[in-house]
Amino acid sequence: MQTVLLAAATMTGGSAHSDEGMWLFNNPPRHILRERYGFEPSDAWLEHLQKASVRFNSGGSGSFVSEDGLVASNHHVGADALQKFGDKDHNYLRDGFHARTLAEEKQCHDLELNVLMSIEDVTGRVNAAVTPGLSAEEAFLARRKVMAQIEKESLDTTGLRSDVVTLYQGGLYHLYRFKRYTDVRLVFAPEQQVAFFGGDPDNFEYPRYNLDICFFRVYENGKPAKVPHALRWSKAGAADGELVFVSGHPGRTDRMLTVAELEYLRDVQYPYTLQLLHRREVVLDAWGQRNAENARKVRDDLFGVQNSRKAREGGLAGLLDPAFIASKRAAEQRLRAAVSGDARFQEARDAWDRIAAAQAVMAEHARMYRLLEAGHGFNSEWFGIARTVLRAAEEHAKPDGERLREFRDSNRESLELDLFSTRPVYDDYEQVRLADSLTWLVEQLGYSNPLVQRVLDGKSPRQRAADLVRGATVKDVARRKELYKGGKSVMAAASDPMIDLARSIDAEARALRKTLETQDEIKRQAHAQIAKARFAIDGANTYPDATFTLRLAFGQVKGYEDAGQHVPFQTTFAGLYQRWEDQQGRPPFDLPPRWLKRKNALNLDTPLNFVCTADIIGGNSGSPVVNRAGEFVGIIFDGNIQSLVLDFYFTDDVARAVSVHSSAILESLRRVCGARALADELVAGRLK
Amino acid sequence: MQTVLLAAATMTGGSAHSDEGMWLFNNPPRHILRERYGFEPSDAWLEHLQKASVRFNSGGSGSFVSEDGLVASNHHVGADALQKFGDKDHNYLRDGFHARTLAEEKQCHDLELNVLMSIEDVTGRVNAAVTPGLSAEEAFLARRKVMAQIEKESLDTTGLRSDVVTLYQGGLYHLYRFKRYTDVRLVFAPEQQVAFFGGDPDNFEYPRYNLDICFFRVYENGKPAKVPHALRWSKAGAADGELVFVSGHPGRTDRMLTVAELEYLRDVQYPYTLQLLHRREVVLDAWGQRNAENARKVRDDLFGVQNSRKAREGGLAGLLDPAFIASKRAAEQRLRAAVSGDARFQEARDAWDRIAAAQAVMAEHARMYRLLEAGHGFNSEWFGIARTVLRAAEEHAKPDGERLREFRDSNRESLELDLFSTRPVYDDYEQVRLADSLTWLVEQLGYSNPLVQRVLDGKSPRQRAADLVRGATVKDVARRKELYKGGKSVMAAASDPMIDLARSIDAEARALRKTLETQDEIKRQAHAQIAKARFAIDGANTYPDATFTLRLAFGQVKGYEDAGQHVPFQTTFAGLYQRWEDQQGRPPFDLPPRWLKRKNALNLDTPLNFVCTADIIGGNSGSPVVNRAGEFVGIIFDGNIQSLVLDFYFTDDVARAVSVHSSAILESLRRVCGARALADELVAGRLK
Repeated sequence: MQTVLLAAATMTGGSAHSDEGMWLFNNPPRHILRERYGFEPSDAWLEHLQKASVRFNSGGSGSFVSEDGLVASNHHVGADALQKFGDKDHNYLRDGFHARTLAEEKQCHDLELNVLMSIEDVTGRVNAAVTPGLSAEEAFLARRKVMAQIEKESLDTTGLRSDVVTLYQGGLYHLYRFKRYTDVRLVFAPEQQVAFFGGDPDNFEYPRYNLDICFFRVYENGKPAKVPHALRWSKAGAADGELVFVSGHPGRTDRMLTVAELEYLRDVQYPYTLQLLHRREVVLDAWGQRNAENARKVRDDLFGVQNSRKAREGGLAGLLDPAFIASKRAAEQRLRAAVSGDARFQEARDAWDRIAAAQAVMAEHARMYRLLEAGHGFNSEWFGIARTVLRAAEEHAKPDGERLREFRDSNRESLELDLFSTRPVYDDYEQVRLADSLTWLVEQLGYSNPLVQRVLDGKSPRQRAADLVRGATVKDVARRKELYKGGKSVMAAASDPMIDLARSIDAEARALRKTLETQDEIKRQAHAQIAKARFAIDGANTYPDATFTLRLAFGQVKGYEDAGQHVPFQTTFAGLYQRWEDQQGRPPFDLPPRWLKRKNALNLDTPLNFVCTADIIGGNSGSPVVNRAGEFVGIIFDGNIQSLVLDFYFTDDVARAVSVHSSAILESLRRVCGARALADELVAGRLK
Repeated sequence: MQTVLLAAATMTGGSAHSDEGMWLFNNPPRHILRERYGFEPSDAWLEHLQKASVRFNSGGSGSFVSEDGLVASNHHVGADALQKFGDKDHNYLRDGFHARTLAEEKQCHDLELNVLMSIEDVTGRVNAAVTPGLSAEEAFLARRKVMAQIEKESLDTTGLRSDVVTLYQGGLYHLYRFKRYTDVRLVFAPEQQVAFFGGDPDNFEYPRYNLDICFFRVYENGKPAKVPHALRWSKAGAADGELVFVSGHPGRTDRMLTVAELEYLRDVQYPYTLQLLHRREVVLDAWGQRNAENARKVRDDLFGVQNSRKAREGGLAGLLDPAFIASKRAAEQRLRAAVSGDARFQEARDAWDRIAAAQAVMAEHARMYRLLEAGHGFNSEWFGIARTVLRAAEEHAKPDGERLREFRDSNRESLELDLFSTRPVYDDYEQVRLADSLTWLVEQLGYSNPLVQRVLDGKSPRQRAADLVRGATVKDVARRKELYKGGKSVMAAASDPMIDLARSIDAEARALRKTLETQDEIKRQAHAQIAKARFAIDGANTYPDATFTLRLAFGQVKGYEDAGQHVPFQTTFAGLYQRWEDQQGRPPFDLPPRWLKRKNALNLDTPLNFVCTADIIGGNSGSPVVNRAGEFVGIIFDGNIQSLVLDFYFTDDVARAVSVHSSAILESLRRVCGARALADELVAGRLK
């Protein structure tokens, strides 16, 4: 309890007393590292780590580990790509994959990897566009426009993917330039049962025994890309007590939210999300169990749902801890008191009230927004594609700065990569998802709701879903391109029930989005004012909430105490086999055949997983863990159950990040997986 | 579609054109049987079948199949008893059980079996107590009082368990007298994996391959009871096309509900229930997967949740079929038109509006009622026991007729059997269930709700659940008896956090119950008036909605067409092994070792399951299927997926009841299970 309070109290301003922080690469925690660890990273050290770090746009992190473009990440980050390779005769997600030659490396359907090349502060320019006196709606439009402009100019000048990133909920705007890789090939994945040994029961738990790894290679012009920044492989790997760094892409944290915003998460957002996740988990699991082919089709989605469910359950438990909200409230009151007594922060005085008011408006429309605009009522790939095609015709006819953000020119290549992907989509599975989500729409809005009646078109949800999936013409990539490139007139003439459905709700969906974006603008402005006050009062040595952009975290390799028991910093292969034995090999504690057969070939004392105190969250999966020398010593794949509150505040009392140890990777590749060449490439840092 | 309309149109009045009906034993469908099948059951035939039928008060049906008290039912009906026998070294539910001698038969913890001995119409006396001019609240109290009186008098006179049963939603009141058996011993159960082969994916599906059987024996004075009515075993078992009868206890149907009531089920009740079931399924499954012991503890509960979820999903799909509600509305309008033009039914004219108004009041309080009184916010055995003990002190101090219905004298023995049961309850599992349901309470009412704050007592749901389970003194049966027998003063002095919790919400819970019971009385009176009109207009040759009381259904053994494919009337053991092979034995399509080893000993052409057109619903599980000669030819265990709409209307187009064939039972007992003596007893109809 003490720790919670302390952590929550300190979280508003960063801290030299803990291993807290998801730091920006252009504002690293130099002072803390010097004070606590006597370590001073050079600019070159930072640049090398930054440019060796890779973002998976499917969600996740990775790093270059060979100058020939080899990328290391997690099996569960690669799962999306593995799933898309599967067909009724191949289940790469379950069975793993190994390209023994470059020729065997398999090109992914629609995977985009990004490497951060530079950061530029554009806060002044973004805020200057939002001139005084604009209404919130006008301000939102002006801000969207200038962001698109900045991005387009940068793209045209540099050729790099250029995204304006919002930090501190609107306190800062930075322009991130990325090198894009879209020819990404799968090199190696182990069997899911060793990558995710223990399955959902062991997910977010520790001690842990997972070989959660996956290797890709980026190509340019049909050849392995030569990358200037690749991490060297550490000989020893992570050791107890040592200082380590994590460079990756934490997805989202909510540490800077006001109490009103947190209460909204606790009372509305999380309960709604959990309901939806529970429902989807049951539907997917039940359908998947019917036969092996169904099981294959739902595999990655089911993992995603279960993973989110467990994370949200932990987050909600944190929000329901009375000590947490009390400490947040106290901290907020202190800051408000400081602000109200200081003339410099006059405009921030009622910022909290404006946020609460905006939040209340958002709450009023949130359900409809989620169902229509976020698509929870239409859980179907074909629906998503139909809507994108429909909207593209309308949006592309507008000037760049006036489009919905995903249609801006600077995002065009990424949008098309996804839209024209040849990934497999299954009609039977689409029907199950769509029928269930239409039923969810009915349950949420009521059967008699006119919109519901319009959507159902006089049919039961099951019948309607079946008809929609049967009739969709956007299933055909060529047809999709034709519609997309044809513009408004072709679209108006198109006959497709899925497009008609998207069209029939589009006015409402766009209106809801506008409402929420306008309120978000109000919150941005208020948060910017609070941030400004906080920088002045607490000092600028802080880090912003996570935004799926590159961050640097640090910490110690370190065990912890749990219910009076010491939990050691690492596990070994011996522990894996012990747990298998303790659970009598019952699923999800079964092991793939070769792992049982080749047990004796392994050095069972090899470290398998280890924990450290670094500050991570979902999205960090696949992040490299490096030592002071910048060498690769492991790869993040999870946090323990006590870390699930890290969404809201940092604590390193018992919360830990969990990694695969670098030694386990080499040992597995060599002794079990028959992948000596890959192991050799890791050690050498290049292809032989 | 045609069939749905036809069925829904005819369901209000029974029908000679289909195998519809869950008929009362004192009003059997003699006319229909004669017309359709040329069969005239004698009074003796009916009495024999009635008194050979057994109700499992844990939920389910069964029948005497030997004059030495042997009872046949389903494995999934016996599951509750099997679960309660388990401990960390024994998993009878999973592994099965076989008593080779009478001495080895295991006495159940708290299983009560009932046999219906007589039926008496007490409608006049019940309605006479509700004198004109009483308010709905007074009417409810008067009705409850006279029902308790009738029951007590009957119990005192006959010594038989006596229940006044409400039929036709209040149109008739019958006094049912039961012989009670409380010394019930387990004789035989197969492994769950052969009883429930295919698990949740195959549940409610057909073709099917389940040996869903279980045998118990009732004892009196420590010896096997001699029962005068036991079903003879058929030599051949069920044959294609033959007329069969099902005698069992359908739990609940909603065929007589008004459109307003059905819309409530569609819009409120079913969505709520499914949300709760999805949630519980995920929570139980996730916890159960953690290790074998958890899996054992949740096994029966998880089955129950999954079974309900699948049934409710099917029911909701039926309610969301626009053709169904349209046909119900049309039928209701026809009846209302007939009523409004006929002076005899003057008081019924606004009955539908009164039901709709009462339903609206109930809807307003339904959520709170479910959370507090139905206990959805406190999903814990210890909480239930604490509340029973708490209320018993208060209720037993009142005159019999003024008590909450479960505390009436005529129910005392059954209440105490349950309350003082020595069944195992597990603290860890209790904590998981209680923490989750407290979180559900928070989510449903909002964290800031004063009642929620009172319930949580300043703690998080997890912490509160842990404290409550740790502190509960009612875990000790002796302490429970002391409190129960001590009355008000002992209860007032009792220190138990679980009792304190029950006490802290008891005023609200009782008030909610009163509100709902009062509205229910309004609906009863209105339904009685509608029923009276319907009897007069359509004739009295009908059957009431199911009420977990004994009913007679009939139909033909008969296959059906599904998506253009003919589905044969029966499956065989050969089909079981074929499906195992097709699914590569992956769970839940695995088979227990001896079933694989002894495959060759079986005659694979033996019929395993079969379908018939009889009208059944949940609660009918374990019902005997008999032929014209009254011989046992099979045992009901499920309905197919098309039968899930039977809750709302009958159809025998493709809806089917699914049974275990009697031949499969003998073949399994003899060739696989090493239970020849049991098989011999079945054939001989008595112990050797």
